[in-house]
Amino acid sequence: MITIPLEPDSDQPMYIQIYEYIKNEILTGRLSCPERLPSARSLAAYLQVSRSTVDTAYEQLVAEGYVDAKEKRGYFVNSITHTQKFTVSGHTEMVPDKTKKETVPVLYDFNPDAIDTAHFPYSVWKSIGKNQLDNPINFLAGDSLGIPELRQSICDYLHGSRGVNCTPENMIVGAGLDYLLQLLCVLFQRKAVIALEDPGYRSARQILTSNGYQILDIPLKGKAFDVDMLRQSNADVCYVTPSHQFPLGSVMSIARRQKLLSWAHEKENRYIIEDDHDSEFRYKGKPIPALQSLDKGYKVIYIGTFSKAISPAIRMGYMVLPPALMARYRTLCATYACPVPRISQAILNDFIQGGYFEKHLNRMRKQYKGKHDYMLEQIRLHFPSGLIELSGDNAGLYIIIRYLGPLSAEEIEKRAEKNGIRLRPLHGYYANLPADYLPSYLLGFADLSMEQIADGITCLAEKVFLPHDSYLS
Amino acid sequence: MITIPLEPDSDQPMYIQIYEYIKNEILTGRLSCPERLPSARSLAAYLQVSRSTVDTAYEQLVAEGYVDAKEKRGYFVNSITHTQKFTVSGHTEMVPDKTKKETVPVLYDFNPDAIDTAHFPYSVWKSIGKNQLDNPINFLAGDSLGIPELRQSICDYLHGSRGVNCTPENMIVGAGLDYLLQLLCVLFQRKAVIALEDPGYRSARQILTSNGYQILDIPLKGKAFDVDMLRQSNADVCYVTPSHQFPLGSVMSIARRQKLLSWAHEKENRYIIEDDHDSEFRYKGKPIPALQSLDKGYKVIYIGTFSKAISPAIRMGYMVLPPALMARYRTLCATYACPVPRISQAILNDFIQGGYFEKHLNRMRKQYKGKHDYMLEQIRLHFPSGLIELSGDNAGLYIIIRYLGPLSAEEIEKRAEKNGIRLRPLHGYYANLPADYLPSYLLGFADLSMEQIADGITCLAEKVFLPHDSYLS
Repeated sequence: MITIPLEPDSDQPMYIQIYEYIKNEILTGRLSCPERLPSARSLAAYLQVSRSTVDTAYEQLVAEGYVDAKEKRGYFVNSITHTQKFTVSGHTEMVPDKTKKETVPVLYDFNPDAIDTAHFPYSVWKSIGKNQLDNPINFLAGDSLGIPELRQSICDYLHGSRGVNCTPENMIVGAGLDYLLQLLCVLFQRKAVIALEDPGYRSARQILTSNGYQILDIPLKGKAFDVDMLRQSNADVCYVTPSHQFPLGSVMSIARRQKLLSWAHEKENRYIIEDDHDSEFRYKGKPIPALQSLDKGYKVIYIGTFSKAISPAIRMGYMVLPPALMARYRTLCATYACPVPRISQAILNDFIQGGYFEKHLNRMRKQYKGKHDYMLEQIRLHFPSGLIELSGDNAGLYIIIRYLGPLSAEEIEKRAEKNGIRLRPLHGYYANLPADYLPSYLLGFADLSMEQIADGITCLAEKVFLPHDSYLS
Repeated sequence: MITIPLEPDSDQPMYIQIYEYIKNEILTGRLSCPERLPSARSLAAYLQVSRSTVDTAYEQLVAEGYVDAKEKRGYFVNSITHTQKFTVSGHTEMVPDKTKKETVPVLYDFNPDAIDTAHFPYSVWKSIGKNQLDNPINFLAGDSLGIPELRQSICDYLHGSRGVNCTPENMIVGAGLDYLLQLLCVLFQRKAVIALEDPGYRSARQILTSNGYQILDIPLKGKAFDVDMLRQSNADVCYVTPSHQFPLGSVMSIARRQKLLSWAHEKENRYIIEDDHDSEFRYKGKPIPALQSLDKGYKVIYIGTFSKAISPAIRMGYMVLPPALMARYRTLCATYACPVPRISQAILNDFIQGGYFEKHLNRMRKQYKGKHDYMLEQIRLHFPSGLIELSGDNAGLYIIIRYLGPLSAEEIEKRAEKNGIRLRPLHGYYANLPADYLPSYLLGFADLSMEQIADGITCLAEKVFLPHDSYLS
């Protein structure tokens, strides 16, 4: 018989107490194979509990394999290895994330990745959201490419605003650019050498390398993509940002676009990945049409997201694939589920269909243009003209400032930190820094108020870049 | 001078009309390099439009590279390749998805992947959703591992209900199992041979193979994972479903768990992926603790999702990584964004924190147990006992029926289709069908009413499996 110290008043049901006790006896070796457990009837009588309590405990022990039930013979302890002795100690000592460090409080954060959330039409979004929360269909698995209505809406938008040739059948909705690039990594089957713009989008580089691709960094030649160097390389695929080079901001000329398309057409496995990242925000003239719109031969993979136009937090992007790659997707990724929650897709679709997206874009273009122009004005006001060069090409959510004065990058960044200014150096976007690199910074303005822009730029000019002689501490 | 047929009443602004006209002239070769455009002033006078209209058109042409602006000399047509002639024709001929086909209307769909959406607490979810829609923080990019509050809530839940050892620092929130497996593909750097249960989860197999991994299918030995065969193989990683084998439903015994852990501990690069897919739904006794809870040496990668417990459409899962893999994640995937929308994370966190998740699980366990027991009862009522074998181990959202009679699988499936019954054959889950395989089907019950279960099982018994002699058409 087994004496089990039962606690009838405990929160734990009696059957669990019996189960836990016997399990521990087995795990510690006090009960061992092939010992026979007392019959359920006799143990129940001994412990003065109901027969079904012991039955349930025994069944649990059987289900987990501690005990075997042999018909008409009873319950027998199973053979268990007791020797799981490992030198590494408990799980609670998990390595904490040490990447964060304490710094001086940040007063002015010129974050180029920020967006303006103050002007988002929350009430519209919320009312659409409420409606969709009422729809139980949003709790059922949806189409693996993304819900068809949303794909149609995005197609219409892309065709109208970017000239992109697409149909819902060759579009995949995914959880942002990072996810879509991971899908492309599957589609290329690790057989491609991929050329990237240098400087360029760092996350793309990391995703491609961590997925086993060989990368070829192609230095921009005076802010332009060097198609001749690409042609001389063994790259099969190139990743470009033709409408607004990231991060330099230049626009790929029509001649270069044609040259790039010709390169792609020369071999069957060549493709161009067009990352059309913040094409919505151009403050002068009409939008630059997408490279994909010029492509007559299915060579351009077009990727875009709603990260800048709506929010990076909604994790929603789309990819337009040429038919050959779409066919490969249907074979290789047939079972892949669409990673975007169905309700998020439904909300976005209503937002586009209701005309709110277009209204929001127009409003934000005006807002951002105001901030962009004001930041330019403030920079011109507070910096002497020979000290810096500006670039940005009247688009996007940041301006690049290139410093021509005597301070080193280290000094500038030290001063900035000391004055509570967070700077994003351009050099972080380079794989290989060019010989003529001068300290340059991306100055984001999207989430700053006009006052913050004025104060931040004044502080930057007067306390970081200007007083060349007074910096001694 | 250029004569441009302007339409002042058109929807298109004048500057776009000028831009489009000149662009076309260049693209068709009627204007060619190095021709000089008329000065903006003279063209404006000639067309009787304002100077700024022509300026804007010219700037757009310059921005897109059709024209070069040379200081003090004017605007010159750039050299453009006109020779983009490709044999493939227009984009509208995209390959349509032909995987769908017309069938007899489905009256009874025993879908094992379905969930019951009728009992979801929509009003609670909606009210949480409304609150979170009001919070602009949900429109800002969140933590790349998932928001810390949610990771803490999931840790608490897993620790309490599954015995999993975890902290928010070694947990990654991702867009469902598929996404998390893709992340693991990155972490193993394509260097591992991965052993899978056969039969098993088909999507896992596809994700791993399409990501370039060599797969070893390990046939289950009487419904149990064959650790001896694993040991004799060159596999480094194995993917298992210990609490409820998918699809057979068996529970991995404690002895086998210990053996599997011992195998993993023998070499540094060995890991076990534990897919704890529908651990929430066990109808007898207490839940089977996770394999990870027994692991003292950081060898188990624990993956779970909310697909069954809440909905597959919310695309939310989590992965608990051993410290060595977590460190690798922080290096290789430092820039990867969390693919789950921030607002979805915040809603789920409130749902768990408010106690609604636990309540919902308890309610659903009761609902599903009711349907499970009722389906068993109906099967026992309508099928003669020697004709079929049942399995399912009192857990999960389906029962497996194994047919012992004379009909072929083909005949059964033809009859089922003719009678409007959709069956999911077990053989679809096998990589290699065992010699003793008999026609078997997964009968899901989650989204069926009691009436549908009774009618569907009756129809299945009487019209599909039973009338062995009357089937002639």
